[in-house]
Amino acid sequence: MIDDYNNRMNTSFSVPEPSPDLLQQATLARRSARDLSQTTNDQRRFALNSMAEALLLRSREIVEANLEDIRRAKKVGLGQSLVARLKLDEAKLKDAIEGVRQVALLPDPLGLCQLGCELDDDLLLQRITVPLGVLGVIFEARPDAVIQIASLAIRSGNCAILKGGSEATKTNEIIMSTLQEGLSSSVVNAQSVSLLRTRQESMALLRLDGLVDLIIPRGSNELVRFIQDNTRIPVLGHADGICHLYIDSEVDLDQALKIAIDSKTDYPAACNAIETLLINKDVAESFLVKAIPAFNSLGVKLLGDDESRSLGIHNSATEKDWGSEYLDLTLAVKIVEDLDQAVDHITRYGSRHTDAIATTNQEKADIFLRSVDSAGVFHNCSTRFADGFRYGFGAEVGISTQTLPPRGPVGLEGLVTYRYQLRGNGHIASDYSSGIRQFTHRNCPHD
Amino acid sequence: MIDDYNNRMNTSFSVPEPSPDLLQQATLARRSARDLSQTTNDQRRFALNSMAEALLLRSREIVEANLEDIRRAKKVGLGQSLVARLKLDEAKLKDAIEGVRQVALLPDPLGLCQLGCELDDDLLLQRITVPLGVLGVIFEARPDAVIQIASLAIRSGNCAILKGGSEATKTNEIIMSTLQEGLSSSVVNAQSVSLLRTRQESMALLRLDGLVDLIIPRGSNELVRFIQDNTRIPVLGHADGICHLYIDSEVDLDQALKIAIDSKTDYPAACNAIETLLINKDVAESFLVKAIPAFNSLGVKLLGDDESRSLGIHNSATEKDWGSEYLDLTLAVKIVEDLDQAVDHITRYGSRHTDAIATTNQEKADIFLRSVDSAGVFHNCSTRFADGFRYGFGAEVGISTQTLPPRGPVGLEGLVTYRYQLRGNGHIASDYSSGIRQFTHRNCPHD
Repeated sequence: MIDDYNNRMNTSFSVPEPSPDLLQQATLARRSARDLSQTTNDQRRFALNSMAEALLLRSREIVEANLEDIRRAKKVGLGQSLVARLKLDEAKLKDAIEGVRQVALLPDPLGLCQLGCELDDDLLLQRITVPLGVLGVIFEARPDAVIQIASLAIRSGNCAILKGGSEATKTNEIIMSTLQEGLSSSVVNAQSVSLLRTRQESMALLRLDGLVDLIIPRGSNELVRFIQDNTRIPVLGHADGICHLYIDSEVDLDQALKIAIDSKTDYPAACNAIETLLINKDVAESFLVKAIPAFNSLGVKLLGDDESRSLGIHNSATEKDWGSEYLDLTLAVKIVEDLDQAVDHITRYGSRHTDAIATTNQEKADIFLRSVDSAGVFHNCSTRFADGFRYGFGAEVGISTQTLPPRGPVGLEGLVTYRYQLRGNGHIASDYSSGIRQFTHRNCPHD
Repeated sequence: MIDDYNNRMNTSFSVPEPSPDLLQQATLARRSARDLSQTTNDQRRFALNSMAEALLLRSREIVEANLEDIRRAKKVGLGQSLVARLKLDEAKLKDAIEGVRQVALLPDPLGLCQLGCELDDDLLLQRITVPLGVLGVIFEARPDAVIQIASLAIRSGNCAILKGGSEATKTNEIIMSTLQEGLSSSVVNAQSVSLLRTRQESMALLRLDGLVDLIIPRGSNELVRFIQDNTRIPVLGHADGICHLYIDSEVDLDQALKIAIDSKTDYPAACNAIETLLINKDVAESFLVKAIPAFNSLGVKLLGDDESRSLGIHNSATEKDWGSEYLDLTLAVKIVEDLDQAVDHITRYGSRHTDAIATTNQEKADIFLRSVDSAGVFHNCSTRFADGFRYGFGAEVGISTQTLPPRGPVGLEGLVTYRYQLRGNGHIASDYSSGIRQFTHRNCPHD
C-alpha cells in the first residue's frame, strides 16, 4: 500500500474527489457519531464487550480468513516481515480480544468538567469533554489494528472509518463484519465503525474535512508525510522518531550502558528507540571501552564521528546520519564538549519525540529536561518507556510529535476534545459592553 | 493583502522556498525560544512591563508613523473601513498598552504539572506545561495586533514572527522596534519577536515546519483557508462562523427576542454573531409578529424560507443562505418542526463555532447542549459571549473551530503544550517486557 502512496507522490498524483458512496458512508458515520455521543459510559462498555464476544464466537473463521490472506501474500511474493505482520493466529487474536475488554474497563474519558466559571449571576460556563466525532484511520498490514482502533473509537464515543492494507482484505473484512455484528446487539449503531474497500476511497478520505475530524495514519514515515501534505484534516502521529541519549560526564557508566543498550536494542524498529548516542568527551573513552564490545556482541553497527573513531569505532558517521532514523540495529555516535552542545545537537537534528540524559548530577538533569523540547524528556531511564501503556494510559492510539496537544503517547484522552457550555437566563452581550452589567468571573468547583 | 492571497490562489501560485534571510530569522527565533522557555514567571512579567514602558515613551512617534500610513492609504484610495481599522490614535494606543500590562498580570500558564504517575519505584512520570516554541502570525490591517500578539507570545514563553498588512508598514515597524527596545532592558532576547518585511517572506513562513510551531492567521476566511491549504504547520483559527439561535416552542418570547437581537446586532461583523435563526413552528407566528418590526427598526434584512415568508418576511432565503456567513445586518430565518430538525439543520449547515437554544424546558436545553457539536453550545443567552475575555481567560488569541484542542476561544492556555518528563534510576524497558519487573502505575498528587 505504501508503495502506492509513494508512486503517487512522485508522479504528483492528486487526491481524488470523494465518490457519492464514500460521501454517503461518511455522512452516515457523522450521523452515527451524534447518536454515539449521547450514549452512557455503561452503554459504550457493553458495546465493547459485545464486540469481544462476537470476535470470540467467530475466532475460527477469522483465523481461516487470515490464512487465506497469508497464502495469497506468499503467492505474490510479499516479503517475510510483511507476512509476519499480516499473521493473525489464535493466540494473537485472543490477545486482541483481551485488549478490547481492557479498553472497556478504562475510565470514561467523556463528560468530564474541565473548567467551571460563573461569568455573572445565573450565567454559568463549563468546559466538558466530548468525542471528536469521526476518525479516519489509514493503516498498513497488521489486521489486529482494526480491532484495537474500533474499540478505542467506540470507548471514546467516536465513529471510525478504516482503511487497511489490501494484503489483509479478507481478514479485515471478516473482523469488521464481526465487530458490527457485536455492536448490533448493543445500542451503538453497527455502522459506527466501517471499512473502506478501495485505495481510491482511502485517498478521497483526506478530502472529507467537515465530515472526518481526525486522520490517524499507522504506517511508515512516508505514509504519514503524504497524508500530512494532502489533507486539511488534523493528522495525529509523527513522521520521524530520531531519539537521543546523552551520556553526561558525571555518570554511573554501567547504568548508562544498560540504558543505552535497552534504548537501542529492546525493539530497534520502534520510533522510541535511539538513533544517536551523544557522549561527553570526559567519559567517552571509559564508556566506549565497555560499550563497543557490548554493542558488537548484540549485532549493533556503530557509526562514529572523528573523535569516537579515534576511540575504536570503525565506521564513520556522516552529516546525513545525524538526521537518520535507522529503525534497525545501527547507532550513530558523537562525542560532545558539554551538556550545551548535546542540547544543541538534539535541537538541530532531533524530531522532538523522546530524548534522554544519563547523569548523576541532578542540576544538569533539570537543565536537560527543561531545555530539550521533545514530547518526552527522560533522566536515567530508557527512551523505550515512551509508550501509552507504559505511561499507564491503558491504551495507545499513537505518539504525536506535534507541539500542540495531544502530544507524546496518545491514549483515550487524545481522542476527545471539549465543548464550552454556557447556561444563562436571557443574558445579552451588549449589557456588558455598555457597562450596564459587569462580569463576575467566579471560578466554580468542578470534578 | 488578502487580495494578494486570492490572486495567488486563483493563479495556483505556489508557496516559495524560504530565503536564507528568513531561515536565519526563524533559526534565531527558535534559539531565542529555548532561552525564553527557561525564564521565570517574574522575568516574563518584567519583560511585558518593559514593553509597555517603551511603548508609552514612544507614543507620539508611533501615532505619527500611523498618521503617515493613513495619509498614504488615503492617497492610494484604500476603503474607508480599512482606513478606520488601520488607525492607531493616542487613545487606542493607550488601551493597547494597558492590555500589555493586563496580560502581564495573568497567571503563568507554564510549568504546571497536569499529571503525575509513579510508573515503578523511583520511576516518576510528570506532564508539565511548556511553551509551543515559535509562533508565526499573519494578520491584516489593524496595527495594535502587533502589540497584543507580542505580549501574549512572551507571556506564554513563545517567540513570534509577525507579518502585518503592507498598509500599516510604518506603524508596525516602529511598534516592533519599540517592543524590542523594551525587551532589551529585560532578560528576554529582543529578537524573540520580529517582523517579516515582504509578502514573499510571509508566504515562505508556511514552509518552515520544524522551525515554526503554530500559524495564527488573523484575517478573512479566505486568508485562513489559503493558509490551511498551504502549510504542514498547525493553524489556529477558523474559517467560517455560521452561528445559529433556535427558538423552541416552550420559550419566554420576550427574552428570546432580546437574545436574538443581541446575537445578530451587537457586532454583526464578528464570527460569533448569528447568521440563521431557527424558529419552532408552534411559536413562529407569535415570535415573528414582534421580531419582524424589531429587526426592521434595527436595519436587519431578513431572508425567510416559505413558511416564514407566509408570516411576513418579504425576502426569500435560498439553499445558499443556510451556509452563508453574512458578517452584516442580514439574517436568514427558517421554521422547523421540532428540536430534532433544528439540530439536524445546525449539524448540516453550521461551522461548529457557537450555537444557542432559547427554551424554558431544561430537558430540551440539555439535549441541545449534548447533541450540537460546536465549540460553544449556549442556553438562554447570546452567542456573542463566545469570546476569550468574556469567558474570563483575560486574553484571546482567536477562536478555534477545530475539533482537536485548543477549541473555542483560545487564551494563554492555547499557546502552551505539555511535555512528559520521566525520571528514573537506571530503569530499562526490557525488564518490564520480560516480566522481571511490573509497573505500579500509582497516581501521584500534582499541583
